[in-house]
Amino acid sequence: MGDPAADDLSLAAKLAPFVAENAVFKPPTYWKPWQGREPMLLILLTVGRVFGSSLRYRREWLSPDCREWALEFTAEVHGLKLTGVDLVRCDESGKICHFEVVMRPLKAVQALFQEMGRLVPEKMELWGISPTSKL
Amino acid sequence: MGDPAADDLSLAAKLAPFVAENAVFKPPTYWKPWQGREPMLLILLTVGRVFGSSLRYRREWLSPDCREWALEFTAEVHGLKLTGVDLVRCDESGKICHFEVVMRPLKAVQALFQEMGRLVPEKMELWGISPTSKL
Repeated sequence: MGDPAADDLSLAAKLAPFVAENAVFKPPTYWKPWQGREPMLLILLTVGRVFGSSLRYRREWLSPDCREWALEFTAEVHGLKLTGVDLVRCDESGKICHFEVVMRPLKAVQALFQEMGRLVPEKMELWGISPTSKL
Repeated sequence: MGDPAADDLSLAAKLAPFVAENAVFKPPTYWKPWQGREPMLLILLTVGRVFGSSLRYRREWLSPDCREWALEFTAEVHGLKLTGVDLVRCDESGKICHFEVVMRPLKAVQALFQEMGRLVPEKMELWGISPTSKL
Protein backbone atom coordinates (compact mmCIF):
# COMPACT_ATOMS: atom_id res chain seq x y z
CA MET A 1 0.00 0.00 0.00
CA GLY A 2 2.65 2.53 -1.00
CA ASP A 3 2.77 5.34 -3.50
CA PRO A 4 0.89 4.15 -6.64
CA ALA A 5 3.50 5.69 -8.95
CA ALA A 6 6.34 3.90 -7.13
CA ASP A 7 4.30 0.68 -7.03
CA ASP A 8 3.83 0.84 -10.82
CA LEU A 9 7.55 1.32 -11.42
CA SER A 10 8.32 -1.62 -9.15
CA LEU A 11 5.73 -3.83 -10.87
CA ALA A 12 7.00 -2.80 -14.31
CA ALA A 13 10.50 -3.87 -13.29
CA LYS A 14 9.14 -7.28 -12.27
CA LEU A 15 7.19 -7.70 -15.53
CA ALA A 16 9.95 -6.40 -17.83
CA PRO A 17 11.67 -9.81 -18.33
CA PHE A 18 8.44 -11.18 -19.89
CA VAL A 19 8.23 -8.50 -22.57
CA ALA A 20 10.45 -8.14 -25.66
CA GLU A 21 12.49 -4.94 -25.80
CA ASN A 22 10.93 -3.90 -29.12
CA ALA A 23 7.39 -5.03 -28.27
CA VAL A 24 4.59 -3.32 -30.17
CA PHE A 25 1.42 -2.23 -28.41
CA LYS A 26 -1.77 -1.36 -30.32
CA PRO A 27 -4.38 0.35 -28.13
CA PRO A 28 -8.15 0.12 -28.59
CA THR A 29 -8.37 3.89 -28.78
CA TYR A 30 -6.20 5.03 -31.69
CA TRP A 31 -4.47 3.46 -34.67
CA LYS A 32 -0.85 4.46 -34.10
CA PRO A 33 1.01 1.75 -32.18
CA TRP A 34 3.56 2.25 -29.41
CA GLN A 35 6.95 0.63 -29.69
CA GLY A 36 9.01 -0.53 -26.74
CA ARG A 37 8.68 -2.53 -23.55
CA GLU A 38 8.33 0.47 -21.23
CA PRO A 39 5.42 2.18 -23.05
CA MET A 40 3.59 -1.18 -23.21
CA LEU A 41 4.01 -1.81 -19.50
CA LEU A 42 3.10 1.78 -18.61
CA ILE A 43 -0.11 1.60 -20.63
CA LEU A 44 -1.12 -1.85 -19.36
CA LEU A 45 -0.49 -0.90 -15.73
CA THR A 46 -2.45 2.34 -16.19
CA VAL A 47 -5.38 0.52 -17.81
CA GLY A 48 -5.27 -1.92 -14.92
CA ARG A 49 -5.72 0.98 -12.48
CA VAL A 50 -8.57 2.47 -14.52
CA PHE A 51 -10.44 -0.87 -14.65
CA GLY A 52 -9.58 -1.71 -11.02
CA SER A 53 -11.57 -4.56 -9.50
CA SER A 54 -14.10 -4.49 -12.37
CA LEU A 55 -11.65 -6.39 -14.63
CA ARG A 56 -12.60 -10.04 -15.17
CA TYR A 57 -10.99 -12.43 -17.63
CA ARG A 58 -13.52 -14.69 -19.34
CA ARG A 59 -12.59 -17.12 -22.15
CA GLU A 60 -9.13 -17.63 -23.55
CA TRP A 61 -7.79 -19.23 -26.68
CA LEU A 62 -4.23 -20.39 -27.31
CA SER A 63 -2.60 -21.35 -30.61
CA PRO A 64 -1.21 -24.90 -30.89
CA ASP A 65 2.37 -23.58 -30.64
CA CYS A 66 1.40 -21.61 -27.49
CA ARG A 67 2.76 -18.39 -28.96
CA GLU A 68 -0.53 -16.66 -29.78
CA TRP A 69 -3.33 -15.98 -27.31
CA ALA A 70 -6.70 -14.29 -27.39
CA LEU A 71 -7.96 -13.31 -23.93
CA GLU A 72 -11.55 -12.12 -23.55
CA PHE A 73 -12.30 -9.78 -20.67
CA THR A 74 -15.00 -7.55 -19.28
CA ALA A 75 -14.49 -4.37 -17.25
CA GLU A 76 -16.01 -1.00 -16.44
CA VAL A 77 -14.79 2.54 -17.00
CA HIS A 78 -16.73 5.37 -15.33
CA GLY A 79 -19.58 2.91 -14.74
CA LEU A 80 -19.76 1.93 -18.44
CA LYS A 81 -19.49 -1.80 -19.06
CA LEU A 82 -17.18 -3.03 -21.80
CA THR A 83 -15.98 -6.24 -23.42
CA GLY A 84 -12.53 -6.61 -24.90
CA VAL A 85 -10.05 -9.07 -26.30
CA ASP A 86 -6.29 -8.97 -25.77
CA LEU A 87 -4.46 -10.34 -28.81
CA VAL A 88 -1.03 -11.37 -27.60
CA ARG A 89 1.88 -12.81 -29.56
CA CYS A 90 5.16 -14.11 -28.14
CA ASP A 91 8.52 -14.25 -29.90
CA GLU A 92 10.75 -17.32 -30.15
CA SER A 93 12.16 -16.74 -26.68
CA GLY A 94 8.64 -16.67 -25.20
CA LYS A 95 8.58 -12.91 -24.57
CA ILE A 96 5.52 -10.85 -25.48
CA CYS A 97 6.34 -9.03 -28.73
CA HIS A 98 2.88 -7.88 -29.84
CA PHE A 99 -0.12 -6.81 -27.76
CA GLU A 100 -3.26 -5.51 -29.44
CA VAL A 101 -6.54 -4.67 -27.69
CA VAL A 102 -9.97 -4.60 -29.34
CA MET A 103 -13.05 -3.46 -27.42
CA ARG A 104 -16.73 -2.57 -27.42
CA PRO A 105 -18.85 -0.49 -27.15
CA LEU A 106 -17.94 2.94 -28.49
CA LYS A 107 -19.02 4.93 -25.40
CA ALA A 108 -16.83 2.93 -23.04
CA VAL A 109 -13.84 3.21 -25.40
CA GLN A 110 -14.40 6.97 -25.59
CA ALA A 111 -14.45 7.13 -21.76
CA LEU A 112 -11.26 5.07 -21.62
CA PHE A 113 -9.63 7.34 -24.21
CA GLN A 114 -10.39 10.40 -22.04
CA GLU A 115 -9.20 8.73 -18.85
CA MET A 116 -5.95 7.52 -20.42
CA GLY A 117 -5.36 10.98 -21.90
CA ARG A 118 -5.61 12.34 -18.36
CA LEU A 119 -3.32 9.75 -16.74
CA VAL A 120 -0.71 8.70 -19.29
CA PRO A 121 1.21 11.89 -20.13
CA GLU A 122 2.14 12.55 -16.48
CA LYS A 123 3.20 8.94 -16.04
CA MET A 124 5.25 9.07 -19.26
CA GLU A 125 7.17 12.01 -17.82
CA LEU A 126 7.70 10.22 -14.51
CA TRP A 127 9.02 7.12 -16.30
CA GLY A 128 11.17 9.21 -18.65
CA ILE A 129 9.37 7.97 -21.76
CA SER A 130 9.16 10.16 -24.81
CA PRO A 131 5.83 10.28 -26.67
CA THR A 132 7.95 9.76 -29.80
CA SER A 133 8.00 6.07 -28.87
CA LYS A 134 4.84 5.98 -30.94
CA LEU A 135 5.68 4.26 -34.23
CA MET B 1 -25.32 -8.95 -60.02
CA GLY B 2 -28.91 -8.17 -59.10
CA ASP B 3 -30.51 -5.70 -56.77
CA PRO B 4 -28.36 -5.56 -53.58
CA ALA B 5 -31.46 -5.45 -51.35
CA ALA B 6 -32.93 -8.55 -52.99
CA ASP B 7 -29.51 -10.25 -52.92
CA ASP B 8 -29.28 -9.63 -49.17
CA LEU B 9 -32.70 -11.12 -48.54
CA SER B 10 -31.83 -14.18 -50.61
CA LEU B 11 -28.48 -14.61 -48.80
CA ALA B 12 -30.18 -14.17 -45.41
CA ALA B 13 -32.60 -16.96 -46.30
CA LYS B 14 -29.65 -19.23 -47.14
CA LEU B 15 -27.83 -18.39 -43.90
CA ALA B 16 -30.89 -18.58 -41.63
CA PRO B 17 -30.60 -22.34 -40.90
CA PHE B 18 -27.17 -21.76 -39.32
CA VAL B 19 -28.42 -19.18 -36.80
CA ALA B 20 -30.54 -19.86 -33.71
CA GLU B 21 -33.94 -18.17 -33.71
CA ASN B 22 -33.20 -16.27 -30.49
CA ALA B 23 -29.60 -15.46 -31.33
CA VAL B 24 -28.10 -12.43 -29.58
CA PHE B 25 -25.92 -9.96 -31.48
CA LYS B 26 -23.68 -7.46 -29.66
CA PRO B 27 -22.30 -4.78 -31.99
CA PRO B 28 -18.95 -3.00 -31.57
CA THR B 29 -20.72 0.35 -31.61
CA TYR B 30 -23.20 0.37 -28.72
CA TRP B 31 -23.94 -1.66 -25.63
CA LYS B 32 -27.54 -2.72 -26.22
CA PRO B 33 -27.71 -6.13 -27.93
CA TRP B 34 -30.08 -7.20 -30.68
CA GLN B 35 -32.17 -10.31 -30.26
CA GLY B 36 -33.29 -12.55 -33.09
CA ARG B 37 -31.91 -14.27 -36.17
CA GLU B 38 -33.13 -11.66 -38.67
CA PRO B 39 -31.56 -8.59 -37.01
CA MET B 40 -28.26 -10.49 -36.68
CA LEU B 41 -28.23 -11.47 -40.35
CA LEU B 42 -29.29 -8.00 -41.45
CA ILE B 43 -26.47 -6.37 -39.48
CA LEU B 44 -23.81 -8.86 -40.56
CA LEU B 45 -24.78 -8.60 -44.24
CA THR B 46 -24.79 -4.79 -43.99
CA VAL B 47 -21.36 -4.74 -42.32
CA GLY B 48 -20.14 -7.05 -45.07
CA ARG B 49 -21.22 -4.49 -47.67
CA VAL B 50 -19.58 -1.61 -45.76
CA PHE B 51 -16.26 -3.47 -45.48
CA GLY B 52 -16.49 -4.84 -49.01
CA SER B 53 -13.31 -6.35 -50.40
CA SER B 54 -11.23 -4.80 -47.59
CA LEU B 55 -12.36 -7.56 -45.19
CA ARG B 56 -9.66 -10.15 -44.43
CA TYR B 57 -9.85 -12.88 -41.82
CA ARG B 58 -6.55 -13.39 -40.02
CA ARG B 59 -6.14 -15.78 -37.06
CA GLU B 60 -8.86 -17.94 -35.59
CA TRP B 61 -9.23 -19.83 -32.35
CA LEU B 62 -11.68 -22.60 -31.59
CA SER B 63 -12.63 -24.07 -28.21
CA PRO B 64 -11.96 -27.80 -27.70
CA ASP B 65 -15.72 -28.55 -27.96
CA CYS B 66 -15.85 -26.56 -31.24
CA ARG B 67 -18.71 -24.41 -29.94
CA GLU B 68 -16.80 -21.18 -29.28
CA TRP B 69 -14.73 -19.31 -31.84
CA ALA B 70 -12.71 -16.12 -31.91
CA LEU B 71 -12.09 -14.83 -35.45
CA GLU B 72 -9.64 -11.99 -35.94
CA PHE B 73 -10.16 -9.76 -38.97
CA THR B 74 -8.98 -6.55 -40.54
CA ALA B 75 -11.03 -4.22 -42.74
CA GLU B 76 -11.46 -0.61 -43.77
CA VAL B 77 -14.33 1.81 -43.40
CA HIS B 78 -14.10 5.14 -45.27
CA GLY B 79 -10.39 4.47 -45.75
CA LEU B 80 -9.80 3.98 -42.01
CA LYS B 81 -8.11 0.67 -41.15
CA LEU B 82 -9.50 -1.40 -38.32
CA THR B 83 -8.88 -4.66 -36.50
CA GLY B 84 -11.67 -6.68 -34.92
CA VAL B 85 -12.53 -9.99 -33.35
CA ASP B 86 -15.78 -11.88 -33.84
CA LEU B 87 -16.70 -13.82 -30.69
CA VAL B 88 -19.08 -16.55 -31.76
CA ARG B 89 -20.85 -19.18 -29.68
CA CYS B 90 -22.97 -22.07 -30.96
CA ASP B 91 -25.79 -23.81 -29.14
CA GLU B 92 -26.11 -27.58 -28.67
CA SER B 93 -27.56 -28.02 -32.15
CA GLY B 94 -24.58 -26.24 -33.69
CA LYS B 95 -26.45 -23.03 -34.54
CA ILE B 96 -24.92 -19.63 -33.81
CA CYS B 97 -26.61 -18.31 -30.66
CA HIS B 98 -24.27 -15.45 -29.66
CA PHE B 99 -22.22 -13.11 -31.86
CA GLU B 100 -20.23 -10.28 -30.33
CA VAL B 101 -17.84 -7.98 -32.17
CA VAL B 102 -14.97 -6.04 -30.59
CA MET B 103 -12.91 -3.61 -32.62
CA ARG B 104 -10.21 -0.93 -32.73
CA PRO B 105 -9.47 1.94 -33.15
CA LEU B 106 -12.05 4.47 -32.00
CA LYS B 107 -12.09 6.55 -35.23
CA ALA B 108 -12.91 3.57 -37.43
CA VAL B 109 -15.65 2.40 -35.05
CA GLN B 110 -17.12 5.91 -35.09
CA ALA B 111 -17.10 5.85 -38.90
CA LEU B 112 -18.76 2.43 -38.87
CA PHE B 113 -21.37 3.68 -36.41
CA GLN B 114 -22.27 6.55 -38.77
CA GLU B 115 -22.36 4.32 -41.82
CA MET B 116 -24.53 1.69 -40.13
CA GLY B 117 -26.87 4.42 -38.85
CA ARG B 118 -27.28 5.52 -42.47
CA LEU B 119 -27.89 2.04 -43.90
CA VAL B 120 -29.61 -0.07 -41.24
CA PRO B 121 -32.95 1.71 -40.57
CA GLU B 122 -34.00 1.57 -44.23
CA LYS B 123 -33.04 -2.10 -44.45
CA MET B 124 -34.92 -2.84 -41.20
CA GLU B 125 -38.04 -1.40 -42.77
CA LEU B 126 -37.52 -3.41 -45.95
CA TRP B 127 -37.09 -6.63 -43.96
CA GLY B 128 -40.04 -5.80 -41.71
CA ILE B 129 -37.89 -5.77 -38.56
CA SER B 130 -38.92 -3.59 -35.65
CA PRO B 131 -36.14 -1.66 -33.86
CA THR B 132 -37.72 -3.01 -30.67
CA SER B 133 -35.86 -6.24 -31.38
CA LYS B 134 -33.14 -4.56 -29.35
CA LEU B 135 -33.01 -6.27 -25.95
